[in-house]
Amino acid sequence: MTIVAISGLIRPLLEPQLPDDLDVRWFLTKEEALDAVPDAEIGWFDMNDQAAMAETLLAATSLKWLNSIYAGLDFLPMDVLIERGITVTNGAGINAITIAEYVVMGMLNIAKGYRDVVRAQDRREWLTDSPGKRELAGSKALLLGYGAIGKLVKPRLEAFDVDVTVVRRSSVEGALGPDEWRGKLSEFDWVILAVPATPETDGLIGAEEFAQMKPNTVIVNIARGAVIDQPALVSALQQKQIGGAFLDVTTPEPLPEDHPLWSLDNAHISMHLSGRAQDKMFVRSAERFLENLAKYRRGEPVAPIFDPARGY
Amino acid sequence: MTIVAISGLIRPLLEPQLPDDLDVRWFLTKEEALDAVPDAEIGWFDMNDQAAMAETLLAATSLKWLNSIYAGLDFLPMDVLIERGITVTNGAGINAITIAEYVVMGMLNIAKGYRDVVRAQDRREWLTDSPGKRELAGSKALLLGYGAIGKLVKPRLEAFDVDVTVVRRSSVEGALGPDEWRGKLSEFDWVILAVPATPETDGLIGAEEFAQMKPNTVIVNIARGAVIDQPALVSALQQKQIGGAFLDVTTPEPLPEDHPLWSLDNAHISMHLSGRAQDKMFVRSAERFLENLAKYRRGEPVAPIFDPARGY
Repeated sequence: MTIVAISGLIRPLLEPQLPDDLDVRWFLTKEEALDAVPDAEIGWFDMNDQAAMAETLLAATSLKWLNSIYAGLDFLPMDVLIERGITVTNGAGINAITIAEYVVMGMLNIAKGYRDVVRAQDRREWLTDSPGKRELAGSKALLLGYGAIGKLVKPRLEAFDVDVTVVRRSSVEGALGPDEWRGKLSEFDWVILAVPATPETDGLIGAEEFAQMKPNTVIVNIARGAVIDQPALVSALQQKQIGGAFLDVTTPEPLPEDHPLWSLDNAHISMHLSGRAQDKMFVRSAERFLENLAKYRRGEPVAPIFDPARGY
Repeated sequence: MTIVAISGLIRPLLEPQLPDDLDVRWFLTKEEALDAVPDAEIGWFDMNDQAAMAETLLAATSLKWLNSIYAGLDFLPMDVLIERGITVTNGAGINAITIAEYVVMGMLNIAKGYRDVVRAQDRREWLTDSPGKRELAGSKALLLGYGAIGKLVKPRLEAFDVDVTVVRRSSVEGALGPDEWRGKLSEFDWVILAVPATPETDGLIGAEEFAQMKPNTVIVNIARGAVIDQPALVSALQQKQIGGAFLDVTTPEPLPEDHPLWSLDNAHISMHLSGRAQDKMFVRSAERFLENLAKYRRGEPVAPIFDPARGY
């Protein structure tokens, strides 16, 4: 019987729907995981502790297919996945809708200065003028990354009459290539980072890029903290070189309590919550796994494929 | 020479562009206004004090055309406007873009529980789960009122895959008529009030309507406070009969410091700031007035017309 090792986090949704002719081994702790996985052909190892997930993968020496609810799997040892020829399906797109909604929410909040409205209500103070006076309409956004999230962000912003310029890995009609956007940075009111976390996107935005942005440019990061040179960002925000930052991701996470980003009045920290701001994540992920499981057993290709050589 | 009386608030933008052959009388205080307006044929009386504006109108006994930056003019004596046959142009549409943006922002903030994220950042606390877990995608909205604002709200929400049902004064293809929506209230996740303030819309939403809504329904009011029976709303929110309220308008304004709405955790008060969350209001309004002024002097119709008999 095919042996499947699955994190107990998904058990309530998955167990009632799994085929009978599988040897399913559920685990909750890292110790149970290390015990459950060595003979498993199929694995879904998602745990809250990323280091434990990596360790579990190392122990899963018979693994042929690894599934995850996460889109970014940069915390796993890519060399091991490559070396063992493991097929990896990830959660690309599972969280895309809510993350795209979060991006627009963050931009609107900054445009209208809404954070100060929240604080005023807490003080029971009726403000007589808006703390923010920007409109999305007529503004220009640079969208770096056009995966599942970027593809949802673009039409949402366009409905607000935002002029969206997309950056893609390869220069195609209507999009900028990876070497074309830097020279145009001064044209944009919004720079949105929706790229995968790979060695190429590490430190993609740093002091040089901030220096080219406009004083009102707002950077939105829903990719990974490492895509931004964070000390350079702190400096750009402190000096008001740019207008602000909406950061769903930071380096590290959680952000230490004494980090300067917390208290900068132009830094908005959303604690990597964008993908969690939905109640369908586990349902969608379980449905996708069950579809892939049926395909896998019929010898058909599973999807979406995460390529450890590219890192996305 | 045609006598024009204009509030000094608009002077910096308007004066350099006015024709020379007009007798323009600027005023700042109510006293100056009462002195400036009796012989004026054309008036633009916007002041921060609405009672002073109404009094100024009463004193403007020669007035033929009244212009305003405001869309809702319910604070003026409609009978006086009707009796004297004064043509009224209002600010319908001037604020529509930013108000439509504000509506979506409010809905997203409530969907994601973003207010609690703001408060957590103020405490330097890294939340591990999202305080709100709703998606706009797949939800259903009832949009009451399809004027300049409603027409901009609809496509923005549809870009988020919200199913938007419009209520119009007359039942037309693809919209509900004024007597058709009450029976369907239980179908909607969002009820958005964008109707004009008229006797018919006074208390449009009260205890009976709240009783029909779902426990997660959120009401959004960017119309006028009086469109909602506010004591009934407070009660519905206190009892969690509905999910929440995003109130750009309240009764009265400003809301008194001891009003229960301030501290309800499902009431969001945005202090009538939605229309002010832009920096183009005066520019747009001045441009429109100058266009209308040229038309008026050529004997052509001005627009948009506010009808005091209808109240919008």
